[in-house]
Amino acid sequence: MTRTTPSSPVGLHRVLEPAGVLPQAARRLDAGPDLWPDEIRIRVERLNLDAASFRQLSEKHHGDGDAVRAEVLAIITERGKMQNPVTGSGGMLVGTVEEVGPKAHLDFVPGDQITTLVSLSLTPLQITDDLRRWDGRSEQVPCDGTAILFGRTIAAKVPDDLPADLSMAVMDVAGAPALTARVVRRYVADDRPPTVAVVGGAGKSGSLSLAAARQAGATRTVGVVPTQAEVDLLAGVGLADEVVLADARDPVNLSTAVHQALGTPADVTVVCVDVPGCEHGAILATNPDGGTVIFFSMATSFTAAALGAEGLAADVTMLVGNGYTPGHAEEAFELLRTVAGVRQLFERRLAHGGAA
Amino acid sequence: MTRTTPSSPVGLHRVLEPAGVLPQAARRLDAGPDLWPDEIRIRVERLNLDAASFRQLSEKHHGDGDAVRAEVLAIITERGKMQNPVTGSGGMLVGTVEEVGPKAHLDFVPGDQITTLVSLSLTPLQITDDLRRWDGRSEQVPCDGTAILFGRTIAAKVPDDLPADLSMAVMDVAGAPALTARVVRRYVADDRPPTVAVVGGAGKSGSLSLAAARQAGATRTVGVVPTQAEVDLLAGVGLADEVVLADARDPVNLSTAVHQALGTPADVTVVCVDVPGCEHGAILATNPDGGTVIFFSMATSFTAAALGAEGLAADVTMLVGNGYTPGHAEEAFELLRTVAGVRQLFERRLAHGGAA
Repeated sequence: MTRTTPSSPVGLHRVLEPAGVLPQAARRLDAGPDLWPDEIRIRVERLNLDAASFRQLSEKHHGDGDAVRAEVLAIITERGKMQNPVTGSGGMLVGTVEEVGPKAHLDFVPGDQITTLVSLSLTPLQITDDLRRWDGRSEQVPCDGTAILFGRTIAAKVPDDLPADLSMAVMDVAGAPALTARVVRRYVADDRPPTVAVVGGAGKSGSLSLAAARQAGATRTVGVVPTQAEVDLLAGVGLADEVVLADARDPVNLSTAVHQALGTPADVTVVCVDVPGCEHGAILATNPDGGTVIFFSMATSFTAAALGAEGLAADVTMLVGNGYTPGHAEEAFELLRTVAGVRQLFERRLAHGGAA
Repeated sequence: MTRTTPSSPVGLHRVLEPAGVLPQAARRLDAGPDLWPDEIRIRVERLNLDAASFRQLSEKHHGDGDAVRAEVLAIITERGKMQNPVTGSGGMLVGTVEEVGPKAHLDFVPGDQITTLVSLSLTPLQITDDLRRWDGRSEQVPCDGTAILFGRTIAAKVPDDLPADLSMAVMDVAGAPALTARVVRRYVADDRPPTVAVVGGAGKSGSLSLAAARQAGATRTVGVVPTQAEVDLLAGVGLADEVVLADARDPVNLSTAVHQALGTPADVTVVCVDVPGCEHGAILATNPDGGTVIFFSMATSFTAAALGAEGLAADVTMLVGNGYTPGHAEEAFELLRTVAGVRQLFERRLAHGGAA
């Protein structure tokens, strides 16, 4: 059944409250399966909760998977979308196209397997199996249900040559390598090929960002990780020129580690760790005379970043990590195909239930 | 008396808890007046609370000035700095140099009148007069007390030709016009002279940003304000090519107003309003194919910005408004001296107790 009231390409017609905000800012969405003419309905197979959200839920419930599952189900039922009320973040999903509205723009047909390229925090979602196949202990949530793509929502077909869970894990963070590459290329174009530090270099967005930085022309890359096990892991796959151990929440520790690895502060620092309190270390680790910090962590505090840089008299450009850059999905898939170290880290992560 | 334990140019030695974080992130600072050798002590004459912080306090206490004053005093006494626990922000101060440590870098001598160029949220502060001269109804707080500048803290002398309260009001927001001008110049250098929308164009950072955008080569500027009174005010001083009325928290209202004023989305949108929920409207108001949004509001939600742009498939560069750019103080003073409309708005604001 197709609905006949007017629809908005950005989904305003699905917002139940408060009126007038975009779906991402809404408290509740209409997640009903009947389509407006420009929408597409997806049969959902799996959710991928974003790292900051899953960590918050897991810590809140002390690792009790049943409690985590119950809370995720309650959130989706109440809000009509999966948006962690503490972190504000969501994740994304993989599923199969079930119905395409007559005025939908995306070139999909029923049966296509796709991943969304927008956050679950704005995607209308209904769960029909009570998440009973999920143990609450991993970011990847097998499930049955329906989700809606608006007229302007973007999504990507799962490539034939990649497993669906791998595709979804990559798509969740596809914005990071694309924006990192763009920033590095800008420095290269200005005749200042940059050094690049990636904080959280062994994680999903971090490993992709390291690979993208190198391909885009970084002169030297350093991956920062929080444990010796991750040092060994990241060093073993050869994605970074240097791998260093540091606590990203300790500004002096982090900046000293980067300075020592590179001999100078980094020209570009990419923050990919999902814990709060990394802003000041990242700024201190970065060239205070024209460096750039890209914040991809959903745990980033805007105020801490803005006032921290000012307090340090650091002339650094600070970017909010936009999850969308044109072509980002294909670029990320290509990194997964062509850079062995990236694929090794992703497959290892999936085998371990999504943990970093 | 000079202290003899080691000091840090970024103030780590003044952090009481938690250990290892920078002063901006600290819960409590040692605000004692005795100096380390690289520090400078200021006799404080006046605080300027940042707009987001003052608004939060004033709304919390329903405009009861005595209650606002009591809370500000309690915060400073407990934390050793003025940092609003809800907004995380501070403001800045004006005062007179009282003592200069033997290893201090700044070229000040006792008796110089200065304004700080860093946030109160990281500045050690003791109040000695219980704020008794302040009525709690304005951002400008006359007071007596002491504040500390670290080795790397920046500050500016109050120009001889400008009143101290005017200087302080300008310095509080000096980062905004400097960064706006830098972004506009980058577009001009790329042969794409931009259109610029300033949300909150009649306020302090907004009016300076409008003036800076025009000087830097914007092809057309639009100021967005929330009331007809502000439309008349901003139109009357001639700082913007267009002035439009819109609620910045309403994404459709804001973006439609900007589109109509310019005929297209803005290439650069500058967010200078101190209310939450403006991220999505700003993104929708901006060219989704290469536009830039600069967030100067301390009420900005990092998550809303990052996920909002992704959800809209908007290829916009989003900048965290860094309060520091080299030369920003002198540039802002120069705008105040040379652009009559800016000075008119600032003087009017001061005459009205700091209200927008």
